[in-house]
Amino acid sequence: MEEIVEELLTDRILTAVKNRNAKEIKEIFETVPNIDIAEALDEVDDAAVFLYIFRTVNSEYTSDFFTELTNDQQEMIINAFTDKQLIDLLENSFADDIVDTLEEMPANVVARVLKACPADLRKDVNNLLNYKENTAGSVMTTEYLDMKDDLTVKDALKIIRKRGKDAETVYTIFVRDSKRNLMGTINLDDLIFADEDEVLSEIMDRDFVTCNVNDDQEEVANMFKRYDLNAMAVVNNENKIIGIITIDDVVDIIVEEATEDIAHLNQISNMDEPYLKTPVYKLVLKCVPWIVVLMVLQVFSTLILSKFQDAMKAFAILPVLVPLLTDAGGNAGGQTTTMIVRSISLDEFGRGDFKRAVWKEFRVASCIAAIIAVFAFGLLMAEMAIGIADVSSCAEEIGVNIVLAMVIVASLISCTLFVTMMAARLVACMFPFLAKKLRLDPAVVCGPFNTTIVDVISLLVYFFLWTNVFSKFLGF
Amino acid sequence: MEEIVEELLTDRILTAVKNRNAKEIKEIFETVPNIDIAEALDEVDDAAVFLYIFRTVNSEYTSDFFTELTNDQQEMIINAFTDKQLIDLLENSFADDIVDTLEEMPANVVARVLKACPADLRKDVNNLLNYKENTAGSVMTTEYLDMKDDLTVKDALKIIRKRGKDAETVYTIFVRDSKRNLMGTINLDDLIFADEDEVLSEIMDRDFVTCNVNDDQEEVANMFKRYDLNAMAVVNNENKIIGIITIDDVVDIIVEEATEDIAHLNQISNMDEPYLKTPVYKLVLKCVPWIVVLMVLQVFSTLILSKFQDAMKAFAILPVLVPLLTDAGGNAGGQTTTMIVRSISLDEFGRGDFKRAVWKEFRVASCIAAIIAVFAFGLLMAEMAIGIADVSSCAEEIGVNIVLAMVIVASLISCTLFVTMMAARLVACMFPFLAKKLRLDPAVVCGPFNTTIVDVISLLVYFFLWTNVFSKFLGF
Repeated sequence: MEEIVEELLTDRILTAVKNRNAKEIKEIFETVPNIDIAEALDEVDDAAVFLYIFRTVNSEYTSDFFTELTNDQQEMIINAFTDKQLIDLLENSFADDIVDTLEEMPANVVARVLKACPADLRKDVNNLLNYKENTAGSVMTTEYLDMKDDLTVKDALKIIRKRGKDAETVYTIFVRDSKRNLMGTINLDDLIFADEDEVLSEIMDRDFVTCNVNDDQEEVANMFKRYDLNAMAVVNNENKIIGIITIDDVVDIIVEEATEDIAHLNQISNMDEPYLKTPVYKLVLKCVPWIVVLMVLQVFSTLILSKFQDAMKAFAILPVLVPLLTDAGGNAGGQTTTMIVRSISLDEFGRGDFKRAVWKEFRVASCIAAIIAVFAFGLLMAEMAIGIADVSSCAEEIGVNIVLAMVIVASLISCTLFVTMMAARLVACMFPFLAKKLRLDPAVVCGPFNTTIVDVISLLVYFFLWTNVFSKFLGF
Repeated sequence: MEEIVEELLTDRILTAVKNRNAKEIKEIFETVPNIDIAEALDEVDDAAVFLYIFRTVNSEYTSDFFTELTNDQQEMIINAFTDKQLIDLLENSFADDIVDTLEEMPANVVARVLKACPADLRKDVNNLLNYKENTAGSVMTTEYLDMKDDLTVKDALKIIRKRGKDAETVYTIFVRDSKRNLMGTINLDDLIFADEDEVLSEIMDRDFVTCNVNDDQEEVANMFKRYDLNAMAVVNNENKIIGIITIDDVVDIIVEEATEDIAHLNQISNMDEPYLKTPVYKLVLKCVPWIVVLMVLQVFSTLILSKFQDAMKAFAILPVLVPLLTDAGGNAGGQTTTMIVRSISLDEFGRGDFKRAVWKEFRVASCIAAIIAVFAFGLLMAEMAIGIADVSSCAEEIGVNIVLAMVIVASLISCTLFVTMMAARLVACMFPFLAKKLRLDPAVVCGPFNTTIVDVISLLVYFFLWTNVFSKFLGF
């Protein structure tokens, strides 16, 4: 929302609260989405404002509105509420939303909220609090509608009217047999299109999919995409349904997982909060470790360069072109890592695809290495000719023809780049698969590993070719 | 799906087709999701197999199944179909799915399909084909349910039963007044919970949001996330509804946009197809231009290093430490670019947030630069002490105490790193905002720009400090 609109809304709400204008407050909540109202009030820290709003506005709006507030505001409101008000709020909330709120609260607030929860809701909340982060269990909700498979459509609709408001979704109904085994699913629209007297087992979809409560949330998101689902049943190890995940949670998971991949591929430990809302010290902690790790890993390149100090002194154009080599190798390897890691995240590889990927990358790398080797030869000849990379003093000092020196240098870079590109891309292609096999997150470990390997390879090839092949031509 | 399960399914289907076992084919389609069947058959190129399947299976499955096949298979099937079969298939398809298929087909196939479309569907398809890629118009569908605001709930449900099967979704009903202005939305569950005699205008949600047909799909996806929507109305410039976008399309958009950001942040032009399904020449074309651009941009660092050949010859440890400097600067800047670009993509910044971001980054950068400067001093002293970075010959040659030389080198690197880190992160923070203002895609342009600037700054600072400050201490 544009800031100016937000400011106008803030004024409008605060004025209405000040004047105790209940009609205006109600009108705002009916015509403006909850999240826009919450954002307009995100700097308000006066509990009285919220208490007036919660007293005035219809309860169908307040529980959603509450979940959109900042953690500090939520804590403040819970502390200011009477037990009665707290119970009202909780009764209109879903277990998974309550869990999301509680995870950020101090222990005394958690205790007070759990005490205020109705007994069955408290059981659900306690259960959900126990699942491991990023599993299906941690994102599912326990408020779903399941029905016996011998019900008629008419009875099913009656049940929906009666119990549907307590469920997170009624768009997917889960159908079970008398032993509580999940037999199928029915979408609400199919129920409406069906004949009143049909029996659920006749019209249900039998080609449904489920996930296990311990499955990783990324796998769950991939299933939603693959099967175009609105909701999916979560089953325990005995294959009984214990919760559901709905598409709105999956949208959040997809964004979260993509952001995580982006962070890891660019050497940041994570980006789980919006940039401006993350405290400075946290941003520092997310970035510093990776810079330190990369700096320490660079010890190998430093060692190689140090060993060849004499060569660089004797032919001073050599060090000038080192960054060109290492950067090009790093970029090429980074491209491959990115493509492979993203494909792994999106679950695009099956069994046997490792070999296919390596073979494909071998062909891609050959083409790219050849193109870049030729291009670099031309680029360097041009740079040396116009004096950007100046070989004249080198050539003079060791007493060779300047054109010969130029061709030698351009050929050296060209050959080194060819080997470096091939090696960088093949390593970058294979390592993510290996990392996955070792149960390491490919997005995290591949970048630094890759840079280090590529730097070492390119420097070794560079100095090997120079000392053993090219310098001979110059008569060293 | 695990490959072995897929192979078993392939065998089961092909055997059933071979034996003309209609019952088995039907059973498979009722119990296995369409996409799993399509993948099991992804290497089948015999039109007869598909013709038998389409003849045998209930039409409620076939149009979905068709959209999951590969482009080559779709083309083959369209060519093998009689006009009657084609019309049957199209009648069960949604306009947006047909458009997705047609966009990959040769002109003669497109012409044949359009001819076979019922007149109103053809109009919709033609319309959709004209919207610009990645706009709301290009992803919307024209098959939605809208109703007059004076209808009763009972009548609305009747209309849904009658016309609902032709709509992409009936979970959100769009409510209009007599002038076709969109007045509100109603979710199907609220319709079911409501009293039969209530009028739509009384129970509709008035706090709905819409998007314009020309809005970017990324903005649309951000609105779905923000407002937790199932479907959203797309309006034209006169604010009349002309289509809708549903959550399943948004899931695809979110994945696509995240993948695009990942590609751009890592110097790949795009990754719009799965890695293994992209031909080699396309992968080469996606990667080569960026490596070339980066190589050309490196001309600035080459120029600077070339100018300081004498300094590097005179004090041979200098070139050994150049990659350490440029890589650390590049990594630090890359972290900031990544965080800012992702926040821009997720629409986390509002007006006035530019200043807030720069101020935050200034504080973050100061901390990181200070920490890294201190760390690098220690790391280099250690590396030099144990001979990884060997300064002994340098010190000897110019005749200074080796410990003094070590301290001088470590201080030089430490100071350069401090300035480089500050500059890299501040530039990396400001440039994405600037790029956005200039209507360039921040994810595309920031990486190369950043690397170039940072390399230039770090090298200039390094050699400036060396020639004007530190070398004096060594008595040069």
